[in-house]
Amino acid sequence: MLYIEIKRNHHLTLSKQVYLAIKSAILEGTLKPNTKLPSSRSLSKSLSISRNVVVESYEQLIAEGYIFSKEGSGTYISQGACYQKQPIEGISQTAPHTTAPHVSTPHTTAPKTDLMYQIPKSMVSFRTGLPNLGSIPIKKWGKLYQELTATINPEILDYQNTRGMYRLRYQLSLYLKRVRGVDAPPENILVTNGAAQAFSILCNLVNINKEYVLVENPISHGIVHTLKSHSIPIKAIPVDKNGLMTEYLPSKPPRLILTTPSHQFPTGVVLPINRRIELINYARKHHAYIVEDDYDSEFRFEGSPIQSMQSLDPSHVVYVGTFSKILSPALRLGYVVMPSSIISVLDNYKYINDLHSPILEQLTMARFIEKGYLDYHIRKTKAIYLRRKTHLSDCLSKAFSDKIIISGDSCGMHLIVSFKNTTFNSKLLEHIKKNLVYITPVNAHYIPSENELPSIKKFCDSSLILGYGNTDIDDITLGVQRLQNALNSFVI
Amino acid sequence: MLYIEIKRNHHLTLSKQVYLAIKSAILEGTLKPNTKLPSSRSLSKSLSISRNVVVESYEQLIAEGYIFSKEGSGTYISQGACYQKQPIEGISQTAPHTTAPHVSTPHTTAPKTDLMYQIPKSMVSFRTGLPNLGSIPIKKWGKLYQELTATINPEILDYQNTRGMYRLRYQLSLYLKRVRGVDAPPENILVTNGAAQAFSILCNLVNINKEYVLVENPISHGIVHTLKSHSIPIKAIPVDKNGLMTEYLPSKPPRLILTTPSHQFPTGVVLPINRRIELINYARKHHAYIVEDDYDSEFRFEGSPIQSMQSLDPSHVVYVGTFSKILSPALRLGYVVMPSSIISVLDNYKYINDLHSPILEQLTMARFIEKGYLDYHIRKTKAIYLRRKTHLSDCLSKAFSDKIIISGDSCGMHLIVSFKNTTFNSKLLEHIKKNLVYITPVNAHYIPSENELPSIKKFCDSSLILGYGNTDIDDITLGVQRLQNALNSFVI
Repeated sequence: MLYIEIKRNHHLTLSKQVYLAIKSAILEGTLKPNTKLPSSRSLSKSLSISRNVVVESYEQLIAEGYIFSKEGSGTYISQGACYQKQPIEGISQTAPHTTAPHVSTPHTTAPKTDLMYQIPKSMVSFRTGLPNLGSIPIKKWGKLYQELTATINPEILDYQNTRGMYRLRYQLSLYLKRVRGVDAPPENILVTNGAAQAFSILCNLVNINKEYVLVENPISHGIVHTLKSHSIPIKAIPVDKNGLMTEYLPSKPPRLILTTPSHQFPTGVVLPINRRIELINYARKHHAYIVEDDYDSEFRFEGSPIQSMQSLDPSHVVYVGTFSKILSPALRLGYVVMPSSIISVLDNYKYINDLHSPILEQLTMARFIEKGYLDYHIRKTKAIYLRRKTHLSDCLSKAFSDKIIISGDSCGMHLIVSFKNTTFNSKLLEHIKKNLVYITPVNAHYIPSENELPSIKKFCDSSLILGYGNTDIDDITLGVQRLQNALNSFVI
Repeated sequence: MLYIEIKRNHHLTLSKQVYLAIKSAILEGTLKPNTKLPSSRSLSKSLSISRNVVVESYEQLIAEGYIFSKEGSGTYISQGACYQKQPIEGISQTAPHTTAPHVSTPHTTAPKTDLMYQIPKSMVSFRTGLPNLGSIPIKKWGKLYQELTATINPEILDYQNTRGMYRLRYQLSLYLKRVRGVDAPPENILVTNGAAQAFSILCNLVNINKEYVLVENPISHGIVHTLKSHSIPIKAIPVDKNGLMTEYLPSKPPRLILTTPSHQFPTGVVLPINRRIELINYARKHHAYIVEDDYDSEFRFEGSPIQSMQSLDPSHVVYVGTFSKILSPALRLGYVVMPSSIISVLDNYKYINDLHSPILEQLTMARFIEKGYLDYHIRKTKAIYLRRKTHLSDCLSKAFSDKIIISGDSCGMHLIVSFKNTTFNSKLLEHIKKNLVYITPVNAHYIPSENELPSIKKFCDSSLILGYGNTDIDDITLGVQRLQNALNSFVI
């Protein structure tokens, strides 16, 4: 029987203790692949804890891919989840060249109208990547900003550290450790103008004449646009229901590997631990950096948050985060957690880019986190998103019953609905638009590729991405109705 | 006799009317080079206006190089100031490739201490490019920001126009026309994170494999660092007491020509109209863009502001401005006035760089200008800078009498002091530092070059740049004393 030391007065919850104990045993190789775990009932008995505690920790381990369950047979340790913390071979400590931006969607710059995405008011919008604008505590934010300026030392109004204000980096360091398990000393954090600038700075690492960047397929078309604008060669690796298919990793070493492991964009799948480890070993072998784009992982609805990839190997994973999804894109605040080997290179690119990010909003953000406002806001919006997600799923199920499969909804602000017998070609999309629904098909983010897998192409062509971050309950109801009408009235 | 139509009730002052009439006559070729102008006494009589009015307009025309005075002989029209408003030859309207950043000085990123420039408190600092931090109306700014957030429409917190908020671009358009004569419709303005980002975006225009950038010599070493970091080939053209020496313009077409025509950095000289025209004709012929870096021209002490080069040919001049010198570098707000032919290219570079600049500070700046706070602040600080400049000149003259020449002080926040018999080598600079004065020699901004002119090299080696933007009267007195002690006690 599995022995786990349970501490009743520990600061960690019981289920977290069970989860961590099993996870360590798997990573260290004490629990070998395909070993059967005790049933939740028997483990709970032997540890004298509630069965729900064990169920919760098993669910988390399943979500992260450490273990899997076979129906009617039990729960087993996954293949490939055993892992060496030290690099397999000597890794060069020199700061080399690398890259890759990520932006969520297209851009328009029509004069006099400021909005980047101009969607008519008459439409129901299922746009992705947008938080609920109505609940942003902007007055609280403005008050903090004003209080800051009321007592500021004039010296702060001088040019400041390129990497960002220490007070913010310190708060970020604590926040990331607590919420995402990210190992980020303040010295390794670079404050940027949103994730977009983080990607733009990372692009400079790639020597475009001889290096390339690996990306997931499908992938945010904004990223593809950014990479192409930088003339960076890319190679796309298909994503299946377990994320990036590591079996297709090419033998030619890439410079960067762009990933969204916690909530793949757009499919919403979670990369399991065995593929994470394969990917890290691949990066180590080829002296490449994995870029972990953790754009909306704060909003995880099932189980604890999936731990970051960065925590598995801070020297090979560049972690990119943003406040655009958890607070507001208007602030343009994001950050990069840099492997120590590329700190000076990235500092210099930030410096030549714009010297440093705006000071007053950095300091306001530091206070916003210190005062617990950020945590409170995340809890509040997470509850909103969960209600919207549940309502959206219900509406979709009522409207389309067994004609659809919903996926990618464990986390974030969007889900995927796949239709069994529908292909979203341009004619159908135009018809949906005429029915006043703004919606994007997964294939808008698909890159035609050499190693194209028919099953994945089919999934992309028959699936829609429904963002609900800024779509309220009534609009969700109306939007699904309109979508249903559109599909029913479409004549090929 | 010269005929000028004077309108008593016109919105323009009398001296402005005289200035404009003579300037137009010169530009159109009605007044030919070397023509003698009437004396101020006779012109004032014939026009029935005060002699001071004529003197003032002549002084402005001399400052801009349209006319020159020969001692004891009178005032004459300059060579080369006649000018065709239309391009000489058909200019391609396609948006090509080009570049070039500008940052004022070096960078340090020591952890925990935020200041970019860490100068010990015990030193008197004559750092350049820094405004008077103590008089920045930061409380007023914070209050505007807070008021904005109290009534904001949540839609503003969405992603916004890449080019910047219309309200700010509209205010900038009016401001630039009024203060700098810049012809900038809001559609042609791109809001950036300070001038540094403007230069970084412009760098993308240069195809580094076959194109190069022309720069002035001496030139801000920050710019040289940025260009080098982008691997951009540069060619340096010497600057004499009339600015960039157009006779050295190379026959190989450059992509960009970086200039500081209103107040050359660091020498402080003003580029006269004949050289401006030569430079524009050169840019037209070679399909190059002139980048006009107008970093501190708001603080002109003598005569009216020198008109921008951009107003002479908005299709070949990219105008770069910043709020870092007139308000605070902490805000990171700057802008580019773009020739129409490169709007879409620069929009895209801004988009892939960071989508757009922070929204709330853009809107606060728009209100700050609308309410007249910016104009008021500029008037106020200009008076401060004039007092400091006068005091600094007096101290220097008292300390060094005829051993020095002061120059470059018509405008801005720094001046140049050249010593007749001193060379500022590293030993002497180290000795000055030991005497607790932070000061930069002109040669720190000098690029060793093929067509090196001994007179200019000598000037750079024997001159210091004294910034007084953030150095108060007492510190100026003390700093000059320390400099004098340092020079007196230096043993070679």
